[in-house]
Amino acid sequence: MISLKGIFPPIPTPFDSDEAIDFDRLKSNLARWNGWPLDGYVVAGSTGESVSLSGTERVDLVRAVRSVLPRGKLLIAGAGLESTRATIELVGRMADAGADAVIVVTPGYFAPSVRPAGLVAHYRAIAAASSLPVILYSVPVYTHLDLPIEVVRELAAYPKVVGIKESGGSLAKITSLVDQTPQDFQVLVGSAGLLLGALMVGAVGCVPALGNLATSQIHDLMSAVQRGELALAREIQAKLVEPNELLTVRFGVAGVKAALDLVGLYGGPPRSPLQQLDEAELAILRAGLGRGGLI
Amino acid sequence: MISLKGIFPPIPTPFDSDEAIDFDRLKSNLARWNGWPLDGYVVAGSTGESVSLSGTERVDLVRAVRSVLPRGKLLIAGAGLESTRATIELVGRMADAGADAVIVVTPGYFAPSVRPAGLVAHYRAIAAASSLPVILYSVPVYTHLDLPIEVVRELAAYPKVVGIKESGGSLAKITSLVDQTPQDFQVLVGSAGLLLGALMVGAVGCVPALGNLATSQIHDLMSAVQRGELALAREIQAKLVEPNELLTVRFGVAGVKAALDLVGLYGGPPRSPLQQLDEAELAILRAGLGRGGLI
Amino acid sequence: MISLKGIFPPIPTPFDSDEAIDFDRLKSNLARWNGWPLDGYVVAGSTGESVSLSGTERVDLVRAVRSVLPRGKLLIAGAGLESTRATIELVGRMADAGADAVIVVTPGYFAPSVRPAGLVAHYRAIAAASSLPVILYSVPVYTHLDLPIEVVRELAAYPKVVGIKESGGSLAKITSLVDQTPQDFQVLVGSAGLLLGALMVGAVGCVPALGNLATSQIHDLMSAVQRGELALAREIQAKLVEPNELLTVRFGVAGVKAALDLVGLYGGPPRSPLQQLDEAELAILRAGLGRGGLI
Amino acid sequence: MISLKGIFPPIPTPFDSDEAIDFDRLKSNLARWNGWPLDGYVVAGSTGESVSLSGTERVDLVRAVRSVLPRGKLLIAGAGLESTRATIELVGRMADAGADAVIVVTPGYFAPSVRPAGLVAHYRAIAAASSLPVILYSVPVYTHLDLPIEVVRELAAYPKVVGIKESGGSLAKITSLVDQTPQDFQVLVGSAGLLLGALMVGAVGCVPALGNLATSQIHDLMSAVQRGELALAREIQAKLVEPNELLTVRFGVAGVKAALDLVGLYGGPPRSPLQQLDEAELAILRAGLGRGGLI
Repeated sequence: MISLKGIFPPIPTPFDSDEAIDFDRLKSNLARWNGWPLDGYVVAGSTGESVSLSGTERVDLVRAVRSVLPRGKLLIAGAGLESTRATIELVGRMADAGADAVIVVTPGYFAPSVRPAGLVAHYRAIAAASSLPVILYSVPVYTHLDLPIEVVRELAAYPKVVGIKESGGSLAKITSLVDQTPQDFQVLVGSAGLLLGALMVGAVGCVPALGNLATSQIHDLMSAVQRGELALAREIQAKLVEPNELLTVRFGVAGVKAALDLVGLYGGPPRSPLQQLDEAELAILRAGLGRGGLI
Repeated sequence: MISLKGIFPPIPTPFDSDEAIDFDRLKSNLARWNGWPLDGYVVAGSTGESVSLSGTERVDLVRAVRSVLPRGKLLIAGAGLESTRATIELVGRMADAGADAVIVVTPGYFAPSVRPAGLVAHYRAIAAASSLPVILYSVPVYTHLDLPIEVVRELAAYPKVVGIKESGGSLAKITSLVDQTPQDFQVLVGSAGLLLGALMVGAVGCVPALGNLATSQIHDLMSAVQRGELALAREIQAKLVEPNELLTVRFGVAGVKAALDLVGLYGGPPRSPLQQLDEAELAILRAGLGRGGLI
Repeated sequence: MISLKGIFPPIPTPFDSDEAIDFDRLKSNLARWNGWPLDGYVVAGSTGESVSLSGTERVDLVRAVRSVLPRGKLLIAGAGLESTRATIELVGRMADAGADAVIVVTPGYFAPSVRPAGLVAHYRAIAAASSLPVILYSVPVYTHLDLPIEVVRELAAYPKVVGIKESGGSLAKITSLVDQTPQDFQVLVGSAGLLLGALMVGAVGCVPALGNLATSQIHDLMSAVQRGELALAREIQAKLVEPNELLTVRFGVAGVKAALDLVGLYGGPPRSPLQQLDEAELAILRAGLGRGGLI
Repeated sequence: MISLKGIFPPIPTPFDSDEAIDFDRLKSNLARWNGWPLDGYVVAGSTGESVSLSGTERVDLVRAVRSVLPRGKLLIAGAGLESTRATIELVGRMADAGADAVIVVTPGYFAPSVRPAGLVAHYRAIAAASSLPVILYSVPVYTHLDLPIEVVRELAAYPKVVGIKESGGSLAKITSLVDQTPQDFQVLVGSAGLLLGALMVGAVGCVPALGNLATSQIHDLMSAVQRGELALAREIQAKLVEPNELLTVRFGVAGVKAALDLVGLYGGPPRSPLQQLDEAELAILRAGLGRGGLI
C-alpha cells in the first residue's frame, strides 16, 4: 500500500532558451530538493506544463527523475490526457519508465458534455489497465470540470484508485471526500492556501506548487499540526496564503518558475504561449514572496 | 466592544399562507431558540428573505425579536440595500428598533460596474452615519460581488466596522481576512460547511443557516475545538457538510424553511417567486438531514 | 393592442449633487428627447437605477414623465422587485401614475434556487393583478437569471403579457423567442450591439441604453432595414458596437450618464455605490464615442 | 488568395467499436457529402474530437480526406495544440499531408494566465512558420478563452492569417471583427444558430456542426440572403436554432454523431470519456431534429 502522507510538489519542467527540456537543470534542481523534507514529486503535472509536452517528453522526464530519486521518495507521474485510450497508453509508458504511481487529471475540453457515467468509465478503464496505483485529480480552474463526489465515491471502491488530489479550493468538498470514502482512500489538497483546514478534516498530504520553494514552511505547518501546536500552524498558514495566490491564481506556471529563479533554483522560461513575467509582475511577485517570508 | 464570538443563525422570516409575516410563529420559534446555546440572531438577512421584505417589515421584525430577546444574546439586523443612501436610512431605523448591530450585505445588482473605491465609499458613509457597530457581509452566490480583501482591510480601520460575515466559501480568503486586519476585527464564517477550518485560521464565530436547527452540533464542534478535541470536531464537521449543501446550495431558503418544519419548528412557505419544496425535493432533504443526524 | 415597434430608451434618473432626484433636469432632458424619433421611454428601469430608488421615487418619476409626454409616445414603467407581492403592489401604483405598460425584470437575488415554476407563478400573478400590459425582462448580466424560453412560451399565452425585453446577448435566443411565441407577442432587443441581427430574426423594437444619445443612428438603422438597404444598415451597426460596449459592459450606468453630459444632455452623478467616471475613464469613453461618430 | 465564402462543416471522426478510426466509414460519409453544396471541410477540429486524437491520427485523417476531395472544395485542417512549438510542428505535417489551410484553436488549459501578448506571439510564430493560410479559432465554451478583438486586429495584419472562426456566440463581437479588420480578413461564424445575423454584419461563411446534416437548409439560407429574400432566410434560420442547440450545447459531439446515424450517415461512438447518447437522450434529439425538419 502506497502512502501519500506528506508533501509532493508538482515540479516545473525546466526549459532552455529554445524551450527544449533542460535535463541538467532538472537534475541540479533535484539535487537541492532531494535534501529537503519532501516525500516525493509529481512529475509532468499541470505545473510541469504537461499539456505543452509530448508523451515522449513526459516519459523522459519521469525517467530522468527516477535516475536521481533517493530511496523513500515517491515518483508520481502525471499521465492524464483527454481520451481514455491515450491515457491508458501513457500510464503504461509511465510504469515502464519507473513511476511509483500515476496522477490522472480529469479530461476537460469537452467538460460541458462529459457525463458522470463517462468519468466513471474513464477512470475505471484506466485503473483496470494500470499496473500502478492511480490518483484522481480534479482542478476545475484549468479543466472546468469539478469531479463530482458521487463519482469519486464510486471510484474509491477500486483498489488501484488510491486517492485524489483535490484542487478545487472547497474545504467542504475535501471534508466530504474524506468522509464518504473508505479509510484507505487518501485525500491530497492541491493548494497550500487551505492546507491547515484540509489537514483538520482529514487530508493526509498536499501537492502544492508552493512546495517547490516553501518546503520548510509547509513541513513545519504539518509537523505543528501533528504536535497539536495549532497557534503555530495558523501563523505559518497565514503567511502562505498570499504567495500561494500569486503562484496559483495570479501568475500561474510562469510565476512558479520566476519564484524558483528568485530563490536560487532554476525556473527559466515557460513554453509559449506562456511568457516569462515582465519587470512589473516580477516586482509584485518579489514583494509578495517577501511578505510571506520566502525570500 | 461587541463580541461576535459564537453562533448567530440567520433566522428565516415566517409567513402565513397569505405570505404575510406571522409574528406569532416568529415568537414561538424564538421561544425555542432562546433556550439553545445561541449567542444571538441575524434578523432580516438573506435567509430572512430580506430582499422580499419592505423596509418597514424588516424594522418590525427587529422590534419583534427585541421584545423577546434574553439578556446576553445579540440582535444583528440585516440593513443592506442597493444604494448607500437607502442603507443609511434603514440602519438608522434598525438602531431605533433596538438592534445591537447591523450587518450590511454588499450591493450586487450593479456588480459588474461597482469599483472598489465605490465599495469603500459605501461602507465608510454607512459607518459614519451609524450609531451601531457595522458588520460587512460578502455573499457572492447571491450578489456576484466578492468583497475584495483590500477593501475590507481599508474598512477594518474604522472603529465602527467591527467584523465581516464571509460567505464566499474560500478558506484562503478567511485566512487572509483574519491575518490582514487588526486583532479586534472579527471574522465570522457564513457557512457550517467549512466551520472547523475557519475556526482553525482564526474565525471567531459563524452565521450558519444550518444553525437554525443544528445548534447543538455546531456548539459541540466549537466547544471541541476550544478543548483541543480535534478528532471529535472533525467527526461532527463531516456530518454537517451534506445538510449544509442542501440548505445553502441546493434548496436555499425554501430548504431551510422545510427543514425547520421537519424538526418541529415553524418554517412555512417562502415568499413567491420562491416556492415550497415539492415531495421529491422533501424526500431528498429528509434523507440528507437524516444522514447528518439532524432528524 | 399596444405596439412595441420602435425605440424605447431606458432613461437614466437624474440626480443633483445630493443624489436627490432632479425633476427639472429630467424635464429638460425630456424636452430634448421628445423632439427625437423615439417611440417612448422606459422609466425606472435598470439604467434608471431602479434598485437604488424607493417605490415612491419610482412612481414619482413616472408621474413626472407622464406630465410632459407627447401623444403617441409610450411610457413603460419599470416595476420589477424581488417578490411577487411587492411587484404587484408597485405595478398597481404605476398604473395609477399613468404608465402605459410595465416592464418587470426577473427577480435575481435568489437566482440559484428560483425554479421555472416559480417564475411562471410570479409573472402569472403579476399579469392577473395588472391593469396594464406586462413586458417581461431578462437581463442576466445583472440578475444572473436567464429567463428560460419554456417559461416565456408559457407566459406568452397570457393576453396581458405582450412582449419581452431580451438583454442576454444571444441572437439564437431572440430567434427562438420570436419563433416559439404567438404572432402578437413582441420581442425587444435590449442592446444596440446586436440590433441588426435581432431585427432580421423578427424583433420589433429595442430598449437600448445607447438610444438616449444615438437615437438618430438607431432610427436610421431601423429605417434602412425597412427599406431593404442592408449595406447601409450594416455600416451604421458596426459603428454602434463599441459605444454600446462602453455604456453597457465597461462603464454601466455611470457611463451612460457621462455620455449624456458629453452630448449636452444632463447626466450627472449616479447614486453611490456607483461613482462618476474619473478622468482616465472619461477619456476612454470620449474616444470610443468619437470613433462611433456620437460626439 | 483563399476564399472562405461558404459552408465548411467540421466533420466528426468516425470510430469503429474499438474506438479506432474507421477510414472506410469516413470515405463513405465523404462520398455523400461531396455531392452536397459544401465548400470544403474542417478536418480534425473540435467536432472531429481533435483532443482525443494523436498527431499522427490527425495527419492521417487529412491525408484520407485529401485522397477523395473533389476539386473546388477546401480542406481545412485543425492543427491547434496547447504549445506554440507543438502547433508549429503539426501545421507543418498538415501541409505535407495536403491541407489547403490550417485552423488553429486558442490554447486553453492555462487560460487564466495566458496574456494577450502571449496569444499574439503564439499565432505570429505559427503564421511565420506555416506554408499554409492560417485561420484563427475562438471557442470559449471549450477553451474558456475568448480571443480578444485587439489580438485579432493585430494578427489580421499578417498576410498568412486569413480569417477567424468565431464560436463565442456574440454577434456584437462578430460585427467588430468584420469592422475592425482589413477587407480581406474573412470572418466565419462557428454556429448555425446565429448565421443570419452573422451574414448581415459581414461574415462570409460558416463552420457549423449542423452543416454535417443540414447542408441544404444552410445553403438555402445563405442563397436567400444573397437574393435578398430575407423573410425566407428568417424562416429557415428559426428552424435551425433548436437542432443547433441540441448538437452544440446539450449533447456535443456525441449528439452530432447520433444525428448522423439518424440521417443515414455514419456517426458511431465517440471516444471515451464521451459516451453514446442513451435512449432518453436519443428521443430528445430525434424530437428536436424532427421539429427542425431535419429528419
